[in-house]
Amino acid sequence: MSGARLIGVDWGTSSLRAYLMGAGGAVIEARGSALGIMRVEGGRFSSAFEEVCGDWLAEHPHAPVLLAGMIGSKQGWLEAPYCACPADAGAIARALAPLHLPARRAHIVPGLSCVNAAGVPDIMRGEETQIIGAIAPAGAHLAVLPGTHSKWAWVHDGSVRSFASFMTGEIYAALTGHTILGRLMQMEAPYDASAFARGVGYGMEAPQALLSRVFSARTLGLFGELADTALPSYLSGLLIGSEIGGALAVSPHAGEVTLLGNAALMQRYTEAFAIAGIATRAGAPDCAAAGLWRIAGAAGLLADSA
Amino acid sequence: MSGARLIGVDWGTSSLRAYLMGAGGAVIEARGSALGIMRVEGGRFSSAFEEVCGDWLAEHPHAPVLLAGMIGSKQGWLEAPYCACPADAGAIARALAPLHLPARRAHIVPGLSCVNAAGVPDIMRGEETQIIGAIAPAGAHLAVLPGTHSKWAWVHDGSVRSFASFMTGEIYAALTGHTILGRLMQMEAPYDASAFARGVGYGMEAPQALLSRVFSARTLGLFGELADTALPSYLSGLLIGSEIGGALAVSPHAGEVTLLGNAALMQRYTEAFAIAGIATRAGAPDCAAAGLWRIAGAAGLLADSA
Repeated sequence: MSGARLIGVDWGTSSLRAYLMGAGGAVIEARGSALGIMRVEGGRFSSAFEEVCGDWLAEHPHAPVLLAGMIGSKQGWLEAPYCACPADAGAIARALAPLHLPARRAHIVPGLSCVNAAGVPDIMRGEETQIIGAIAPAGAHLAVLPGTHSKWAWVHDGSVRSFASFMTGEIYAALTGHTILGRLMQMEAPYDASAFARGVGYGMEAPQALLSRVFSARTLGLFGELADTALPSYLSGLLIGSEIGGALAVSPHAGEVTLLGNAALMQRYTEAFAIAGIATRAGAPDCAAAGLWRIAGAAGLLADSA
Repeated sequence: MSGARLIGVDWGTSSLRAYLMGAGGAVIEARGSALGIMRVEGGRFSSAFEEVCGDWLAEHPHAPVLLAGMIGSKQGWLEAPYCACPADAGAIARALAPLHLPARRAHIVPGLSCVNAAGVPDIMRGEETQIIGAIAPAGAHLAVLPGTHSKWAWVHDGSVRSFASFMTGEIYAALTGHTILGRLMQMEAPYDASAFARGVGYGMEAPQALLSRVFSARTLGLFGELADTALPSYLSGLLIGSEIGGALAVSPHAGEVTLLGNAALMQRYTEAFAIAGIATRAGAPDCAAAGLWRIAGAAGLLADSA
């Protein structure tokens, strides 16, 4: 196992994924854990890291450690201040926060911040590493990472120029769980592709009227046009359609979109983008590993870790 | 007390307001009660009505009774099927649901339904009576009723041509109570006019990006640009600005807007409409009484009740 060059972790709020990487960034071994930062008690991040990666650390005393994600937030191990956009792998590498680990080079990747045309700030943490790993270092690209807070990132020649968060996932949960819309819904129903597509179309047609159109998830149920089992997929489509329609209205984009994230959500976004007439490609599932590798390289951490 | 011509009740979900009306619709006496339909146990609406209006009923054996609002819903005393738009006082009067009360002419006002250009239905119940009472029977008018579910109604020559619901109030409650946005907020803080105006401007500028812009209620707090005490007013403004901006984008309107509803919300909408460059006038506080009177007249209920 002398080939290990980097121990990287994508450490989020509710889970983490750790990678042992060898020459060229090849993933020698990957493992997941439910020890997200909110599940690490009393700030014992050092113990949690040892629990997940202890054997790798013992076997590879010279491999540097690089952590990305919410582990670098105020609630994490060590706060890594946001790096301002535009930011490429080099800028992120220069902003790494050194982490004190005995006899080990260890760092935390900063999140990114940007300010939009209206002067309002936005932030991401963890997604920047996936983007750096997934997006080719040349050309103009749009990466979309669906989730609780979806991120849209505009990348040019490997540099994240700007990005925007959309609270789509969290608002879906709040609407179904805590408004009148949830009352008619059968939340355990399987995904309904046709209801989803209907919602996408209605939301995308007039995203500026979302506060009104969302009420259709009640009236279509009351009038018997959609079954209680179809309503969750319909509302999901309505919100995702509003997200995509609204984002494209503000920042038009004609080319392909790179989708990064979990498979089920990516499938829904692929369908919704298709309704908008936009082709998508799925980024590699372990693009966080590729991003950690690229950032480690830009930081000069890979030179002497053989 | 022989002058009483009508006993009218605007009976909502969480409260009710009852009116004893004399010649010309003059309100002889008005009283409120917390006996909204959700607080009437076991469907004992008859007892609740007796509790609130029993003395009026005894003193005015010939005065007809007219009830409006959620009392006519499936969860109410008797379901009064929706009357389809366009609908004026005459159409609503023809759709009254007769209610059996001993030795008394009694009816429930139906709610309204409409279908928008996309073929999607919308509904209101109770607001139609306020609109009929507040809007002059000639000319083109736009009435806006802020609330849990705001209603926008386009009225022409006394007829509600179409309307749209906006879930603004309920979404505000869900966002502050059940998403990350509420975590930074001091919910008990007094109204902050400047933060409200900032939110209105940001929401109104790009209502199609609401799912994204709403995240600013977190980032502006995180970056110290808005105090925790300012964030509730800011988010309220952002949502109301998105409602107004989105509604006007879909259905442009240059004339005055009539606002109907509770005073605190009307003040916020007045400010938000002013930012949009649109003048408002406040409808009379007891326009529900005027609407009940006008509908009763159209139904021929006032002819012999002296």
